[in-house]
Amino acid sequence: MNVSRSSSNGKIPVAVLGATGSVGQRFVQLLAGHPWFQLAEVVASDRSTGRAYCEATDWRLSADMPDGARELVVKDYDAALDSPVVFSALPGEVAAEIEQRLAQEGRALFSNTSTHRMTPDVPLLIPEVNPEHVAALETQRRNRGWSGFIVTNPNCSAIHLVLALKPLHDAFGIDALAVTTMQAVSGAGYPGVPSLDMIDNVVPFINTEEEKMTEETKKLLGGFDGEFQPACLTMSAQCNRVPVRDGHTECVSIRFRTPASPEDAARAMGEFRARPQELDLPSAPRRPVIVRAEPNRPQPNLDRDAENGMATTVGRVRECALLGTKFVLLGHNTIRGAAGASILNAELFKVEGLLPV
Amino acid sequence: MNVSRSSSNGKIPVAVLGATGSVGQRFVQLLAGHPWFQLAEVVASDRSTGRAYCEATDWRLSADMPDGARELVVKDYDAALDSPVVFSALPGEVAAEIEQRLAQEGRALFSNTSTHRMTPDVPLLIPEVNPEHVAALETQRRNRGWSGFIVTNPNCSAIHLVLALKPLHDAFGIDALAVTTMQAVSGAGYPGVPSLDMIDNVVPFINTEEEKMTEETKKLLGGFDGEFQPACLTMSAQCNRVPVRDGHTECVSIRFRTPASPEDAARAMGEFRARPQELDLPSAPRRPVIVRAEPNRPQPNLDRDAENGMATTVGRVRECALLGTKFVLLGHNTIRGAAGASILNAELFKVEGLLPV
Amino acid sequence: MNVSRSSSNGKIPVAVLGATGSVGQRFVQLLAGHPWFQLAEVVASDRSTGRAYCEATDWRLSADMPDGARELVVKDYDAALDSPVVFSALPGEVAAEIEQRLAQEGRALFSNTSTHRMTPDVPLLIPEVNPEHVAALETQRRNRGWSGFIVTNPNCSAIHLVLALKPLHDAFGIDALAVTTMQAVSGAGYPGVPSLDMIDNVVPFINTEEEKMTEETKKLLGGFDGEFQPACLTMSAQCNRVPVRDGHTECVSIRFRTPASPEDAARAMGEFRARPQELDLPSAPRRPVIVRAEPNRPQPNLDRDAENGMATTVGRVRECALLGTKFVLLGHNTIRGAAGASILNAELFKVEGLLPV
Amino acid sequence: MNVSRSSSNGKIPVAVLGATGSVGQRFVQLLAGHPWFQLAEVVASDRSTGRAYCEATDWRLSADMPDGARELVVKDYDAALDSPVVFSALPGEVAAEIEQRLAQEGRALFSNTSTHRMTPDVPLLIPEVNPEHVAALETQRRNRGWSGFIVTNPNCSAIHLVLALKPLHDAFGIDALAVTTMQAVSGAGYPGVPSLDMIDNVVPFINTEEEKMTEETKKLLGGFDGEFQPACLTMSAQCNRVPVRDGHTECVSIRFRTPASPEDAARAMGEFRARPQELDLPSAPRRPVIVRAEPNRPQPNLDRDAENGMATTVGRVRECALLGTKFVLLGHNTIRGAAGASILNAELFKVEGLLPV
Repeated sequence: MNVSRSSSNGKIPVAVLGATGSVGQRFVQLLAGHPWFQLAEVVASDRSTGRAYCEATDWRLSADMPDGARELVVKDYDAALDSPVVFSALPGEVAAEIEQRLAQEGRALFSNTSTHRMTPDVPLLIPEVNPEHVAALETQRRNRGWSGFIVTNPNCSAIHLVLALKPLHDAFGIDALAVTTMQAVSGAGYPGVPSLDMIDNVVPFINTEEEKMTEETKKLLGGFDGEFQPACLTMSAQCNRVPVRDGHTECVSIRFRTPASPEDAARAMGEFRARPQELDLPSAPRRPVIVRAEPNRPQPNLDRDAENGMATTVGRVRECALLGTKFVLLGHNTIRGAAGASILNAELFKVEGLLPV
Repeated sequence: MNVSRSSSNGKIPVAVLGATGSVGQRFVQLLAGHPWFQLAEVVASDRSTGRAYCEATDWRLSADMPDGARELVVKDYDAALDSPVVFSALPGEVAAEIEQRLAQEGRALFSNTSTHRMTPDVPLLIPEVNPEHVAALETQRRNRGWSGFIVTNPNCSAIHLVLALKPLHDAFGIDALAVTTMQAVSGAGYPGVPSLDMIDNVVPFINTEEEKMTEETKKLLGGFDGEFQPACLTMSAQCNRVPVRDGHTECVSIRFRTPASPEDAARAMGEFRARPQELDLPSAPRRPVIVRAEPNRPQPNLDRDAENGMATTVGRVRECALLGTKFVLLGHNTIRGAAGASILNAELFKVEGLLPV
Repeated sequence: MNVSRSSSNGKIPVAVLGATGSVGQRFVQLLAGHPWFQLAEVVASDRSTGRAYCEATDWRLSADMPDGARELVVKDYDAALDSPVVFSALPGEVAAEIEQRLAQEGRALFSNTSTHRMTPDVPLLIPEVNPEHVAALETQRRNRGWSGFIVTNPNCSAIHLVLALKPLHDAFGIDALAVTTMQAVSGAGYPGVPSLDMIDNVVPFINTEEEKMTEETKKLLGGFDGEFQPACLTMSAQCNRVPVRDGHTECVSIRFRTPASPEDAARAMGEFRARPQELDLPSAPRRPVIVRAEPNRPQPNLDRDAENGMATTVGRVRECALLGTKFVLLGHNTIRGAAGASILNAELFKVEGLLPV
Repeated sequence: MNVSRSSSNGKIPVAVLGATGSVGQRFVQLLAGHPWFQLAEVVASDRSTGRAYCEATDWRLSADMPDGARELVVKDYDAALDSPVVFSALPGEVAAEIEQRLAQEGRALFSNTSTHRMTPDVPLLIPEVNPEHVAALETQRRNRGWSGFIVTNPNCSAIHLVLALKPLHDAFGIDALAVTTMQAVSGAGYPGVPSLDMIDNVVPFINTEEEKMTEETKKLLGGFDGEFQPACLTMSAQCNRVPVRDGHTECVSIRFRTPASPEDAARAMGEFRARPQELDLPSAPRRPVIVRAEPNRPQPNLDRDAENGMATTVGRVRECALLGTKFVLLGHNTIRGAAGASILNAELFKVEGLLPV
């Protein structure tokens, strides 16, 4: 592997794949001013390559494009990269081959793409939830002969659900859950959802989303003993698209194995702290789950930016006549639900000494 | 009672209480050209009385105000009415006393207000679902000594749910259900929900809505044997407000007592026909429940006006890992969910010879 | 030409080109139950051909697909047509060649496409505004040797503007005008405008729209004396896209040649009647321009469906410190602004004996 | 006057009137961490007084309520205040008397309320535009015998317009202008505009807004020579409410006295710098007017937060066939359009030594 060990400022050089798209732009934004990582390379499909990032990108975030990114020349998918750490926001159809090649070359590949999330030797990682799944990388290396590796982060609707579920599962054991989502349009990228589908409307269907949420939740809450052991729980998801820009809202009902009152559940979620908080990782929220007492929260417009978009906000924790406990949760789908999740994974790897630098 | 037995065209004269409000306007609109009923009186609060309806009303429906209503003089709540049939869209706080007085005077009072829905001797009626509950009027008359009566129709989110549940309950028995709603803003009237709460936002709370949905569903699916016997089922509701003008969308999961496949459930709903269809009542939908096969339906903008807003549209009938069967339903909340429901009740009474004319 | 002179019910058989798209669907909807025309053929691009219209079309209008259209087999652009009258909702890039071929074959081609609107021998027609422009067809036939012809209707924002301007121009002479539009997303078709551009946002740009509005307005208000003579007036347009499904709103300021008060202007517009009203054409609005007195009208949601979407609604006619008179107008952009305009043109031709049947 | 000269941290203590409302919340948010001012007192109507600010306020901004404000006890309108500097976000009906009393007591009263904007001895101030209008305070003191004073800032739609006009007026002289606005709902406060008026809709009317914009623009661009001399220009405004949370968009056409190309106009706006920039005031944008070259900018969602919401963004500067030059502008209506404007005024006064401390 031809890599720069560090950039001139001592930071680790990183590349972003799919850097001109929606999630790619979020990576570029969140990496600006990062204390450990330096955005060094931006990679995109053919029609962008060779141009300055500021020329090639239809920047659609409300904050301005970071100065450090503007003049980076966009590289194509086949280009040789220098960065030892790579974040992938590639579209699913091209991700598999490119990501595998880069891992084979010895790079640490943190992927937001769905392609490898359920692959048997690829960790699907939330640092607060299942840091022990990193052990699967040994299998991955053995299976594949790679010097680098691929680590994935979950789907935007699964990650916020699982952040709220983790402390509940640890404390009371989750036997069954039902979730109905109201998801923001940014989850579909740009151009994504047509406005004729979203003005004065709801679309009660997001292709393969219910399946992804369910299988990812089980992998995330499950164990790893050489193989991933999905959590043994019954789950049903119903996914809807609503006219909201950012922030997925989810109505959750849960049956616990051990009896727990709504107050018990709220306390467990509100007091939840884990590895990223102990390690004080740069992107880690102080509180992964914020529990609000107001009767009408969380709301996308008011709560999606909590803890810089890295926290899950929970409200209305109350009794459920059917399953015992129900509540509403909300989280930012392109920060903690995508780019921010991937960066937090990389931060954990940095501290644990697992990066190839 | 001082009543007109019929208007000059042979139709039954009817009054609308709360005629200048959102639901009141819908009553006025739906009664225009009705084959049996003639809008004869409009009643509203003090600040409107004595003015022509067209002057007193901030008409907010897309179709023009019906000509027959424009010049009706608005009467106040205390005015003596001539109409033997009265529709009530009164605000809850004033409804109880006024509705009772009119029933006492011998009028047929069809109320869309929540005040009397759960009252032990007041039928909560959907003609397709529980026409036998009309028997409770005997008790009502005995208890109260009224010559008239009060009949209510359900909450806008309950009625569409129960229209879909009824054929399922009859065929397979409903043991338990969970429902999460995404409700339109017109359900809160005008001015109702502030736009700052609905642009780029969801509000995961509607005051007392979850309680109403649950208790009304049980009363509607239950029996009457001198007393209302609520249906014996477990139910949990989560209610949300979304940026949609008209049309409540509901995600439903059900556990049946008798095994049923999604195809069985879809067939039962799609083939459902009941008294209003047999009697061919003027406002009755030909199909009370329309089952669509497309993966992304129903949608408020495309389906709320099905059967002139009087049908419930169901889609995505499929297996639920938790409860067995799940689907999405949608219906117009101010037509079948309010004014249209009340008018259909009156039509049933007309055909059954139960009106005081 | 191989044409059916009439369908079995005595109506004139018509074809719709681009029948599966947004405007095409509107044509199909508006032609259902038309007293003179019978939808006989639906034509679309390759991927739809050979399938039933109901299979090939992602129907997106709130009313159900008309029964008569469902089983029509979609023909491709090269197919031989039987219908003597053809409505075109073709995308611009393919329209020119196909439309010309059909006109050459002897068909009456009524086109909603922009391709030929400004062509020197093609009438750009609004029956209320410039029926005398039909005379240009003689030139068209002479120039091209066609036995049929092409007639176009204006852009969706131009037609409503010109409907309001025509009576003013006739009465007072328009010297100059400024217009700022707030246009609905359906004007861009489907998928059209991404929802990320329209939730909590305005886009102050619609490609080539300002130019089209200006040149079409001048052609429409101008004369024909063997050549089109554009109206001699100064015009400036600013076009914006706003989060509205249907209905373009336009703020207009005008300087007249002859002094006129706001009351004069309002009266001229409100009293405007023209050929389609005299002839009582089936799609003609009784009032082409409706003038409302309320201070806060017109509004898209309340006024776009006036006269079945075929009228222009005007409000707030008042003094303009700069140009003398200003007002707001609104009209349905896919009915009178597209398919309905084309059908009204064909109705005029039918009555005038200008159809090839 | 009983005032604290400084708070414990050496900052000037300030009070906010109407602190629990929409604009009041924005004041509280913007004052958090201000280098010169310390939020010391919050004042609101009766039903809030005596409670902690965090209890009394339905906080509706996406960032959390600042810690320093949470425990402040809300005072009533009649309470004696300690702060020498007061910001007013009072509703118009109560503002006049309260503001005058506080000025009489010797306080510097910076008001966002419309009550005194057009008062002949009250400066309507934008530090970049008319700092010389401060001279009117001498007249104010003489007329009224106050030891303090009232200074106002403009209406939310006028201020952004005038920021863009000022450099043009200085360079080329504005003879006439037309403006059509598309204004955000936050301009109407909370609850403000009903969602039924804003989902799938535009309201082409905002009460008295057109008059305010016009008279304020003339006062702002005019001179002061003992009396305010309104700028001599012809202006016409059309104001609309659109479904946008924050950020007013305005389409402007201008006739200059001295010929100027669009490039000239764009350059003048883009290079505009004034007193606040020279003085480097804490809330001053580095660039008061940002000129963008993209064809489809500015857009509320992308540009309202430019320079922390304190800049006006201009785009599409181009020729206008009618008046010579036209463009689109956009600015944040509750930051630079309200609370931020008032705070910037106070900063100017601080640096100029005009505060009573």
